[in-house]
Amino acid sequence: MVKVKVAPPQRGEVRIKHVAVALCHTDAYTLDGHDPEGLFPSILGHEASAIVESVGEGVTEFKPGDHVIPCYQAYCGECKFCKRQDVNLCTSVRASTGKGVMANDGQSRFTYEDKPIYHFMGTSSFSEYGVVHAQSLAKIRRDAPLEKVCLLGCGISTGWGAVWNTAKVERGATAAVFGMGAVGLSVVEGLVKAGASKIIAVDLLPSKLNLAKKWGATDVVNPQALPEGQSVQAEIVEMTGFGADYTFDCTGNVQVMRSALEASARGWGESVVIGVAAGGQEISTRPFQLVTGRSWKGTAFGGFKSKPQVPMLVDLYMSGELKIDEYITHEMPFAKINEAFELLHKGECLRCVLKF
Amino acid sequence: MVKVKVAPPQRGEVRIKHVAVALCHTDAYTLDGHDPEGLFPSILGHEASAIVESVGEGVTEFKPGDHVIPCYQAYCGECKFCKRQDVNLCTSVRASTGKGVMANDGQSRFTYEDKPIYHFMGTSSFSEYGVVHAQSLAKIRRDAPLEKVCLLGCGISTGWGAVWNTAKVERGATAAVFGMGAVGLSVVEGLVKAGASKIIAVDLLPSKLNLAKKWGATDVVNPQALPEGQSVQAEIVEMTGFGADYTFDCTGNVQVMRSALEASARGWGESVVIGVAAGGQEISTRPFQLVTGRSWKGTAFGGFKSKPQVPMLVDLYMSGELKIDEYITHEMPFAKINEAFELLHKGECLRCVLKF
Repeated sequence: MVKVKVAPPQRGEVRIKHVAVALCHTDAYTLDGHDPEGLFPSILGHEASAIVESVGEGVTEFKPGDHVIPCYQAYCGECKFCKRQDVNLCTSVRASTGKGVMANDGQSRFTYEDKPIYHFMGTSSFSEYGVVHAQSLAKIRRDAPLEKVCLLGCGISTGWGAVWNTAKVERGATAAVFGMGAVGLSVVEGLVKAGASKIIAVDLLPSKLNLAKKWGATDVVNPQALPEGQSVQAEIVEMTGFGADYTFDCTGNVQVMRSALEASARGWGESVVIGVAAGGQEISTRPFQLVTGRSWKGTAFGGFKSKPQVPMLVDLYMSGELKIDEYITHEMPFAKINEAFELLHKGECLRCVLKF
Repeated sequence: MVKVKVAPPQRGEVRIKHVAVALCHTDAYTLDGHDPEGLFPSILGHEASAIVESVGEGVTEFKPGDHVIPCYQAYCGECKFCKRQDVNLCTSVRASTGKGVMANDGQSRFTYEDKPIYHFMGTSSFSEYGVVHAQSLAKIRRDAPLEKVCLLGCGISTGWGAVWNTAKVERGATAAVFGMGAVGLSVVEGLVKAGASKIIAVDLLPSKLNLAKKWGATDVVNPQALPEGQSVQAEIVEMTGFGADYTFDCTGNVQVMRSALEASARGWGESVVIGVAAGGQEISTRPFQLVTGRSWKGTAFGGFKSKPQVPMLVDLYMSGELKIDEYITHEMPFAKINEAFELLHKGECLRCVLKF
């Protein structure tokens, strides 16, 4: 723990005080240097809840005391991407957040011993205070528990959205989900809500497959338990006739992404890449897989438009329509963040929430 | 030229007398041994027109004298694939045609010096007479010129269908088409009919790019004429803002397939693989390309259901709605087939029609 100086918000910016933050694999992966675009020194963290502390010039939609979720997918409402009904990927501050700075002056608001520290994903939630672009905040209702809804900043929303927005799974469809971490489980939950008739969970850990059943998976496959020579994709094709209508990769492993594509149905299967692969890694397959009717897609933040839709997800949680609590396996004070990273690496937690 | 014996049609089969056949790159590529599933000895050819000579037991939908187009994509109307509204890929005789034999008895109907010769793609049109499954024939109107509409057996239909059925291009969309052979040009024509606002044709041959302009391309790109270090995908992204709404590979080159995907728009771009790659070749890209909203698809026979839809394509041609004549650059008697293959290899013809 070090004391970082956080400058006041400038035009179009908001300074926030974080309440809770969860660890996501993307943080771990960037920390470990696998993200080729990762800039150091920076403050990681992007799955948080916060309260507005002060606002910069021109910011009228937030006031001190507002409850917010910082969103790494910004939303300006004005760019070509925000204006299209079916995509997120707002471009308003993308160039700046990609460089770890703020759009107003191209500088960071964090300094440590007078040297700048970069922002990360436009959020940098592993810090008591932070400064974010107004485009990167979703205002949420006051009665929502901040130490729970922080999970809507990334993993849970991403999984649900991959089912609803990207794949648009219809009632009765069959699906296979690869990787039963928090994102994979939220895909399973999304599929249950969508009325999928068969939900095949794939993971190497029996404990994760048991969790998947609790979440609503109808079948489970452990690739290591298959007869020799039987690939997971061949197994899923056998279980479904011609392959699953929809498949989802929640692992970030490019070999698994290929399996997921090839496990989707000849003729109409759609496979969605959700996991973030390590830098330089590539996906590949025989083009025949596409020519015979499979399609390969991807999703970022589940296709949700952050500012307008994260509050809707909070509402769904508050009305008991969607799980959040069940994903939180560990809670600890923020000072124990290194311990939390160890848990994540060991695969022993779904989500660990750190409280400031 | 050799004399091959063609046995009478058995149950569910039809013997046809070919009238005209065109050469497609898939024939050349199989002849050259690039298709790992290519079986020899076999009779190639799959873009033909024919007249029914006799029918086997149980065949009621055809009678001698009917004009037909043999279709390598069969249609039975009964299987899961035929019953789905949006796919072709009928499974009724797929296993047999894949092995080069007829479904009724698992044997070939062709013999040469008493040894069997395999069927190819369920069609084998490079023979005066042939025997095909009833599922593999589309009956067409008598007034359609058989030496023209043979092109509807593959290339032209595939290009049009990739636009209409697979990509479902909407009015005003932008598109890029890679490879200006007959298929690429028919994609351009499909895009013109769909009302695309920008149609970028890509080819290495200036003569093909000139043809593309005649067909309706609004822009052309020759990758070899780009400034050093400028990729064709970067060029197309610059020409369109964020990439083309739709891109089509009509080359069969896996590197071009990658370029086409990466030239499609961040957020909503769709790229369709049409070309057939050589055996063992794989497509690859960074998963980031999918996660940021591009999708990768493919098409076989343009997604058309052969038996019910080929007659509709004939009608469109007959009413002047769609080009065919313009694709036929050469005509010769069937005996000159080797000369025709040479033309194809030299890139000097779009389609050469051989008449029996």
